[in-house]
Amino acid sequence: MKLLAITGGVGGAKLALGLSRVLGPDEVLFAVNTGDDFSHLGLHISPDIDSLTYALAEENNTELGWGRQGETWQFMDTLQALGGETWFRLGDKDLALHTRRTQLLREGAGLTAATHEITTALGITHRIAPMSDDPVRTIVHCDQGALAFQHYFVREACQPAVQGFEFSGIEQARLNPLIADWLADCDGVVICPSNPYVSVDPLLGLPGFREALTKVPVVAVSPIVGGIAIKGPAAKMMAELQVPATAGAVAGHYGDLLDGFVMDNSDKNEAKQIKIPTIVTQTIMVTLADRVALANDTIRFLQQLRAAQG
Amino acid sequence: MKLLAITGGVGGAKLALGLSRVLGPDEVLFAVNTGDDFSHLGLHISPDIDSLTYALAEENNTELGWGRQGETWQFMDTLQALGGETWFRLGDKDLALHTRRTQLLREGAGLTAATHEITTALGITHRIAPMSDDPVRTIVHCDQGALAFQHYFVREACQPAVQGFEFSGIEQARLNPLIADWLADCDGVVICPSNPYVSVDPLLGLPGFREALTKVPVVAVSPIVGGIAIKGPAAKMMAELQVPATAGAVAGHYGDLLDGFVMDNSDKNEAKQIKIPTIVTQTIMVTLADRVALANDTIRFLQQLRAAQG
Repeated sequence: MKLLAITGGVGGAKLALGLSRVLGPDEVLFAVNTGDDFSHLGLHISPDIDSLTYALAEENNTELGWGRQGETWQFMDTLQALGGETWFRLGDKDLALHTRRTQLLREGAGLTAATHEITTALGITHRIAPMSDDPVRTIVHCDQGALAFQHYFVREACQPAVQGFEFSGIEQARLNPLIADWLADCDGVVICPSNPYVSVDPLLGLPGFREALTKVPVVAVSPIVGGIAIKGPAAKMMAELQVPATAGAVAGHYGDLLDGFVMDNSDKNEAKQIKIPTIVTQTIMVTLADRVALANDTIRFLQQLRAAQG
Repeated sequence: MKLLAITGGVGGAKLALGLSRVLGPDEVLFAVNTGDDFSHLGLHISPDIDSLTYALAEENNTELGWGRQGETWQFMDTLQALGGETWFRLGDKDLALHTRRTQLLREGAGLTAATHEITTALGITHRIAPMSDDPVRTIVHCDQGALAFQHYFVREACQPAVQGFEFSGIEQARLNPLIADWLADCDGVVICPSNPYVSVDPLLGLPGFREALTKVPVVAVSPIVGGIAIKGPAAKMMAELQVPATAGAVAGHYGDLLDGFVMDNSDKNEAKQIKIPTIVTQTIMVTLADRVALANDTIRFLQQLRAAQG
């Protein structure tokens, strides 16, 4: 089994960690959203790559739900006292990662090479592939106008009502060749339970990517469970976009891209309305065992779909 | 009494702190070397400005003898684990200051304005004036060729034998107008016990500065005591430059710029060889009281020189 896993932030990274425990580095490649990337205090920050990096390195900060474990805040507290910008919380350890990446990029490395260098240093054997080395920047159109993604997401704490999204630079961005090559020779694709609009759509919008996905079975795991998003603003966004905040609406959003759908036990009454093959299982991942179990369920489902397709 | 105090790093900052306890913000201005400044990990680092800033804010790290008190090293330890450059030790709190300064400079502030913003945030009421807002960079010519100052000073731990110094950019650098204006209306100048070659000479080399100093009494406090430098490589440099490592040689280095010289009790036998008015006192500053006492001695000496000159 050789899989491509598409993932965004913390929610997707949970399933990604499960997949990494079941499949080896030659069996799963992680394709990660970079639409959230931004430049801040002179640093290149890649929140989704870092969420996955910390997850796979088992360095997740489980108290905060984001960032790195054992984090301290001396830098941020001091910067605040000096009148600096502190709306984006950078821990002392996290800051080192952004500094290292920024230095590597300044020395001429691409984001893919910089990510590889950093993940290797953290002992990660699986490959984390940024969706593109070219800049794509998610813009959130909302009642306050157009906001850079992190301004919407962190500074404004997702409070503005969204009206739509724009992925600036996407037409010129080249799908990471690592992902393109992997996809040309793989058995299936898992869309992890990440935000469809701001975590997955940037990848799907990369020139040629959606077409390439039609050649392999694709399953998505719903990030919406019981009408709410387990993590992040997906449900709030759906409501603001006049879309019902349901697992079914997520399936509908991906449309004919999907060959299968994975939803939570608590939404099982909804499953019959979904027109594509669907499995119902526990998608809420609290423990590592939950992550591994959902990874196994998803892999098994993909194998069944492949067998059925012949 | 209205004084200009010329200072470099940690040694000079000790006397500067003493002066700040005796003279108010309208009575003393600190003119600080920026030849040690450099760009590192994308940050603008001004080591001498920061040594004085931490001294005046009473935030000196007395254990290390440099940097900020209560410092932690999570950033540096993590950067090391990620394979980043760690030869220049940046504490988590110190890093915040560099980040704030770099941000202010990026927003268009000059180094003088950025320093004012930062020192004000730290509760410092005295004005710290970088010698110039224009870049001057000290190059150390040594047996390893030409080294940027921090590469010589920190990375190579002052091990290379020096042959001479170059202050790149100095011909184009403009003396900070704050300093020029202060000097036009002041009663005397104190050269703090800083390294003559790399802390004070960059200031003296600024176009017009040495000439302006001839109009007021100037006293220097020897950084060399008993043949050794209290702090830093001054004595080692003197030996390598074939200059005796003595207080007298420091006076000789400044030459006719000086109207008076301050040296330590332990060098009193040398005092008679010095051709200009000289006082002998305790210049080794261990306690705050030592700093204040030397400040008072130096101010009194300057007043005597003024009275003698009429």
